[in-house]
Amino acid sequence: MKMIITETYEEMSTVAAQHILGTMYENRRTNIAITAGTSPIRMYEMLIPQVKGKDYFSDTHFYNFDEIPYKHASCPGITISALNDLFLKPANIPTENIHALDENNYQAFDSMIKQDGGLDLFVMGIGADGHYCGNLPGTTRFQDLTSKVPCDERLKNRIGRLFTDKNEIPDFYVTMGPKSVMQARKLVLIASGKEKAAIIKEAFFGPVTPEIPASILQLHPHLTIIIDKDAASEL
Amino acid sequence: MKMIITETYEEMSTVAAQHILGTMYENRRTNIAITAGTSPIRMYEMLIPQVKGKDYFSDTHFYNFDEIPYKHASCPGITISALNDLFLKPANIPTENIHALDENNYQAFDSMIKQDGGLDLFVMGIGADGHYCGNLPGTTRFQDLTSKVPCDERLKNRIGRLFTDKNEIPDFYVTMGPKSVMQARKLVLIASGKEKAAIIKEAFFGPVTPEIPASILQLHPHLTIIIDKDAASEL
Amino acid sequence: MKMIITETYEEMSTVAAQHILGTMYENRRTNIAITAGTSPIRMYEMLIPQVKGKDYFSDTHFYNFDEIPYKHASCPGITISALNDLFLKPANIPTENIHALDENNYQAFDSMIKQDGGLDLFVMGIGADGHYCGNLPGTTRFQDLTSKVPCDERLKNRIGRLFTDKNEIPDFYVTMGPKSVMQARKLVLIASGKEKAAIIKEAFFGPVTPEIPASILQLHPHLTIIIDKDAASEL
Amino acid sequence: MKMIITETYEEMSTVAAQHILGTMYENRRTNIAITAGTSPIRMYEMLIPQVKGKDYFSDTHFYNFDEIPYKHASCPGITISALNDLFLKPANIPTENIHALDENNYQAFDSMIKQDGGLDLFVMGIGADGHYCGNLPGTTRFQDLTSKVPCDERLKNRIGRLFTDKNEIPDFYVTMGPKSVMQARKLVLIASGKEKAAIIKEAFFGPVTPEIPASILQLHPHLTIIIDKDAASEL
Repeated sequence: MKMIITETYEEMSTVAAQHILGTMYENRRTNIAITAGTSPIRMYEMLIPQVKGKDYFSDTHFYNFDEIPYKHASCPGITISALNDLFLKPANIPTENIHALDENNYQAFDSMIKQDGGLDLFVMGIGADGHYCGNLPGTTRFQDLTSKVPCDERLKNRIGRLFTDKNEIPDFYVTMGPKSVMQARKLVLIASGKEKAAIIKEAFFGPVTPEIPASILQLHPHLTIIIDKDAASEL
Repeated sequence: MKMIITETYEEMSTVAAQHILGTMYENRRTNIAITAGTSPIRMYEMLIPQVKGKDYFSDTHFYNFDEIPYKHASCPGITISALNDLFLKPANIPTENIHALDENNYQAFDSMIKQDGGLDLFVMGIGADGHYCGNLPGTTRFQDLTSKVPCDERLKNRIGRLFTDKNEIPDFYVTMGPKSVMQARKLVLIASGKEKAAIIKEAFFGPVTPEIPASILQLHPHLTIIIDKDAASEL
Repeated sequence: MKMIITETYEEMSTVAAQHILGTMYENRRTNIAITAGTSPIRMYEMLIPQVKGKDYFSDTHFYNFDEIPYKHASCPGITISALNDLFLKPANIPTENIHALDENNYQAFDSMIKQDGGLDLFVMGIGADGHYCGNLPGTTRFQDLTSKVPCDERLKNRIGRLFTDKNEIPDFYVTMGPKSVMQARKLVLIASGKEKAAIIKEAFFGPVTPEIPASILQLHPHLTIIIDKDAASEL
Repeated sequence: MKMIITETYEEMSTVAAQHILGTMYENRRTNIAITAGTSPIRMYEMLIPQVKGKDYFSDTHFYNFDEIPYKHASCPGITISALNDLFLKPANIPTENIHALDENNYQAFDSMIKQDGGLDLFVMGIGADGHYCGNLPGTTRFQDLTSKVPCDERLKNRIGRLFTDKNEIPDFYVTMGPKSVMQARKLVLIASGKEKAAIIKEAFFGPVTPEIPASILQLHPHLTIIIDKDAASEL
């Protein structure tokens, strides 16, 4: 576990962007799982001008690691839509370099990734409750590969804010599981702000338990945590 | 997780020996943690003639991963003594290539390994109760690095059989913890015999839980399990 | 450059076989270019029983690195036929794991290998004249990728002994060039016998020059030379 | 060989800086050989604010790859002085992370690097005559490790412009040789401007010959060339 504590969110974003670029510059196909959400917004803003239209990145492939599908509509899900908006479209990533996890392919996703050569880098955030990807307290089992997570009322309430049309709130979502994530060669976790300070301490300096899903990441042989000093303020 | 199922204990030993040799042939310093016990006996018999007196292995370093010290006597502990007998002495491994964990250096052991460049390979067995190294059901916490494990009566009984002079049974032993083990670049776990069949299924195809300490190894990105068909008979 | 000097041809063969197995045990697809000729005969004899029918090697792919085609007959060329006899058939390597270079695909071979993820290991011999693969004194240019080498009378005489029907001696052969070989992640070169002693000294401890084609291999960051003491007798 | 062609010198500098940072972020000791000269000036300007005072880079070590000593004065040589000014001092790199090649230690330099774990990255420029490090047309032998190069009148004239006091022009300089450079895990070569266009074509798309010292770099399995469009204008 390597801990990088930055002065600001801006520096956190810079360091995270450089981790992604470091992998993208490899002289072979590289596979990167990337995160939506608010933490990486500035990171993607930095990456876009560096990546857009650069053919020397043609061998980098991107994967989303969870998906909340619409219940009825046949449009792309919440996560891939967010990634499209944040990064994939403005950076002009070609369709053939985007590998979208969804409710139809989730059972084959782990073996597809293995077939593609495995993930070289996995970039994720962390929730104040210790969740990462769709691995939440109360639903996480460390042995799970990519799977479907049924949504009870609590979960439906939680994801409901993502849907304008409440009829589209689904009965389940899909996510790469802890076992899938741990197979990646390198993990990068980013966080900023005082509201993440408690969970950073708890997840990475406390017990490994499914109640704090991200705590398992402590055990990965190549985990880098990039956080600003606010998120590090309880260490 | 790569599962190699062999016809016999002999073949299991061959395949395991070849994993160790594959690492030893690297053209840089390599660091290997090795296991005592009965499972690797034949493996070491195969390795000894191939390793003894070969200066092209001068850059391989060996580490033990747990130690049961004598309570009073100032002689080497149970584990390193067993490794000396099984492999290190008959293979003429130079003293400076042997890095013995003991009750005096255990607190510095993880940082010493990091300083040495990290472990390239970690070769271990598994007990029928799911323990590996000194990580036993009831004493294991996944977040632990190398640490001292106090011995209650149950544990004293368990390790007592290793001591002729019962006054030498110690009040504690030391072991690399789950977090230490998971930092290694590659893990190899060996097992043979029907008495291991149930735990192989449980540890690697069941829940990840401290009650089955080896279950955590499922999550390592480079785990190879080498077992004979008896040990695989419940899969 | 790591130099492994063995007591005997038998030990050379053992060490070389273990290098190949070390790569084959990786937990991902591995690509290995292998050599025909007399030097590896015993190595293949050792490998066959260890590889045959073992599904845990299903992710290893094999490539030949040169080919001498028949002029008229539409049968497989000299090299792949020899590899089939020495190893691929007796070891039951599935057709889809064999990637044969020939006169039809040689121009696409380097990019096909790159597409396959690159070569992990390249196992070759050396001629008393310093040639390796089809890179001979007088025909070798270090900058060449896989290419067609026209055969003048000297070369036709040289390869003529391989053909019963002298009408089948071709006007050219194909070979991976020095630049192709140097792209592999690891190189292993084997040699045995006093008749190789002079070239071993010259190629690996003398000037790098196209007149001694194998001399370029000195410069690879991960070259292992495995030779018996006869081949090392001039060092 | 991966070729990255950038729009501008500024972009070339950005991409090169990101290659260095990508290596510096590794979670273990990393060793980087760096270049003086004019090509990397902007690259270092970009790196300095990102590196200065950041303790998460404490495990990165820097090496110079050639040195022109003063003939009489006992002060640091031309190259390390330039690196100190360009990067090492403004970035506050601690003394113990700087490994200076000089006229006293050059014979031990290759084995010292091997002892340190090898070079992970080698960043260099190229001269219009095809030289890199101190490997010049007329003095370069591909098989050379780090060595002393005697200066004839031509060479004394060439390096003379670096000395205010002409009495200090030395009779020799030291440089890592082609064989030393090729041992690094990754090579990065930077160039910009039309005056480099001809040599870029010649060195990387023409014959491998000591007369164009950089031509050997074509053969490295992990070479990245980062050049602006002016330097790429003859491709």
